Amino acid sequence: MQYDNPELTFSGERLRVRYTLHGLNEADARRIAEFICVEQTVEFPYELLAPGLLRDNLVGWIETFVPLPDGSYEVLISYAAESTGYELPQFLNVVFGNISFTPGVRLESLDLPPSLTAAFKGPRFGRKGIRELLGVSSRPLTSTALKPMGQSPQQLAEMAYQCALGGIDIIKDDHGLSDQAFCPFEERVVRCVEAIARANHQTGYHCLYFPCISGPMEKLLAKVRFAKEAGADGLMLMPAFSGLDMIRMLAEDDAVGLPIMFHPGFLGTYRRTPEFGISPYVLHGQLSRLMGADISIFPHYEGRFAPPQEECRLAAEGTRVPMGDIKPNLPSPGGGVRPEFFEEMRDFYGPDAVFLVAGNLHRHGPDLVESSRHFRAMVERLGE
Amino acid sequence: MQYDNPELTFSGERLRVRYTLHGLNEADARRIAEFICVEQTVEFPYELLAPGLLRDNLVGWIETFVPLPDGSYEVLISYAAESTGYELPQFLNVVFGNISFTPGVRLESLDLPPSLTAAFKGPRFGRKGIRELLGVSSRPLTSTALKPMGQSPQQLAEMAYQCALGGIDIIKDDHGLSDQAFCPFEERVVRCVEAIARANHQTGYHCLYFPCISGPMEKLLAKVRFAKEAGADGLMLMPAFSGLDMIRMLAEDDAVGLPIMFHPGFLGTYRRTPEFGISPYVLHGQLSRLMGADISIFPHYEGRFAPPQEECRLAAEGTRVPMGDIKPNLPSPGGGVRPEFFEEMRDFYGPDAVFLVAGNLHRHGPDLVESSRHFRAMVERLGE
Repeated sequence: MQYDNPELTFSGERLRVRYTLHGLNEADARRIAEFICVEQTVEFPYELLAPGLLRDNLVGWIETFVPLPDGSYEVLISYAAESTGYELPQFLNVVFGNISFTPGVRLESLDLPPSLTAAFKGPRFGRKGIRELLGVSSRPLTSTALKPMGQSPQQLAEMAYQCALGGIDIIKDDHGLSDQAFCPFEERVVRCVEAIARANHQTGYHCLYFPCISGPMEKLLAKVRFAKEAGADGLMLMPAFSGLDMIRMLAEDDAVGLPIMFHPGFLGTYRRTPEFGISPYVLHGQLSRLMGADISIFPHYEGRFAPPQEECRLAAEGTRVPMGDIKPNLPSPGGGVRPEFFEEMRDFYGPDAVFLVAGNLHRHGPDLVESSRHFRAMVERLGE
Repeated sequence: MQYDNPELTFSGERLRVRYTLHGLNEADARRIAEFICVEQTVEFPYELLAPGLLRDNLVGWIETFVPLPDGSYEVLISYAAESTGYELPQFLNVVFGNISFTPGVRLESLDLPPSLTAAFKGPRFGRKGIRELLGVSSRPLTSTALKPMGQSPQQLAEMAYQCALGGIDIIKDDHGLSDQAFCPFEERVVRCVEAIARANHQTGYHCLYFPCISGPMEKLLAKVRFAKEAGADGLMLMPAFSGLDMIRMLAEDDAVGLPIMFHPGFLGTYRRTPEFGISPYVLHGQLSRLMGADISIFPHYEGRFAPPQEECRLAAEGTRVPMGDIKPNLPSPGGGVRPEFFEEMRDFYGPDAVFLVAGNLHRHGPDLVESSRHFRAMVERLGE
């Protein structure tokens, strides 16, 4: 068979991907590394490929292969930038598509060449842009979620008013609020926008409201437009359902032009074990930025999900590691955060973080305005 | 706080979800079961909820809790149908959103009440519909992928022609073919449609062509329209990237009206271990049908990925278990299938399956027409 294709040319720019390989002896680990190079690109019997551009440039290259002290192996594989088509879905497909089925392969980090960092615009606002919207220069930021599911738009708007009046920086819908009959999306957005504007008028703060943009694919873009026109300040999306490329599209769209919060619901399986899947460094950090998210929510190491502290460190590092012109975004640890953790969290994540407190805001006492004021006073003591 | 919401009413219909809990003693397993009931619904401190409809109907119910011989626990939890908003994203969010982060929780199976099976239309064609399109009544079906990445549209079209001439039933683009400069989508689709039509004209067969619909979200629907107008017979999608709800939208759209193939690239992590994630029964079976996929690709137990045989049995069972009026779809085991496996595969999966052979079609010999004829003769011997 003839493999010559006159359009197959290579810039020489390569994407470098770091994997760890687990539960394998060295020979098997080398075999899996070679397998990845083929499977993620040509997915074709290597022995049938004639020498030439296709075999020698398109198939991945093992750049380094290093045994680690814990018995695993670290392999750095590079892929031709051209194989990604310079688009996020095919980029992710090259990086981890079929090998998500391969035992013992963990995606650890991404190193993009200039042609790829230029292809992805990244967060529109990023750390600095969100601070500018809030008018808060250096202290940690606070966030809460409107809940529980089952309340009416009017009840949630009243809650939003109280939290905004108390000085919470960012208020989002709970991720379980879609468009259920008991809490219609449009009424909720309109009422919450109004309530938070009223509170901002009283306080002089710039509390931001991020409705949850979920629901059937047919309605997603209409919901975005509705939220924008109703005066929402941002959008929260769950890319597991809307598609990993949806946030990127919305983030790049000048007609949308709103900050975006990435909720990782349904994606937790990817980072449940260090032995396969995707590291928090990529999932909550690098990938959240390639998607264009300005705020990346993940579970804090203290709380209901309690992942290892090291994984939170990795997530936070991924939100700020240099990637060309792609802005750093804000880590938003949540999932059972309590105000007693704030000082430790500031030391751990740095001040450029959004502390997401929801259930424990309600546990703090029956007066939400008072509880929110208390939380704000605490973060103000930690920053400017 | 007041939790009364006049719009909060319940039909009494409940979605029943079976989970297994791993690595826990009985007390902890019961605690996690209770945690799931709250986390997946109200996500709010339970002790702060007043008695009433919200607490007593919206929070999940533990229906049964059973220790299993392997030391794990099986828990059946029911959720009010209303919590799902009768839409796929929020349905999946209730079933496995936040608890994808919880250690030791595995989603095993779904049991939908009539209001939910009615909300999801399921596959448009299903097993029977695909057989009607092919004009093949009872034997196993064959499928192949156009590859390797790096070939031109012309080269892939020639390959498609040869495979169709030899009698392969379904020809799909490899999932790594998006819209790279070296193989533009539109030219590929046009050429492959033409090549397969030419072969069908010669053979009298009805070989079907499924282009890979991937790439940036902005272009996805335009690609679908282009493929439809160019005469493609079906669509292959990777919902990890396009969104788990995209296939459903396309399957329900009468203006599209094409069969859909679900490629599980990037989703393998969900079923990599029986101790957490999502069982193949749900992922490749039940969920593929809720999405509306007519054909569900997954790795066969012999081949490059070699998952346990039991997981393939679960995947196949999920494609046919009764779910209201939602049609059964076709399991399509692949990932290194060889013709020597066909007879065993027919016995294992039954004849209602699509055997996906790609690399090993090329390994069989240099004459693709001859190899395809050989494969067809083999499945014909196994069926009608």
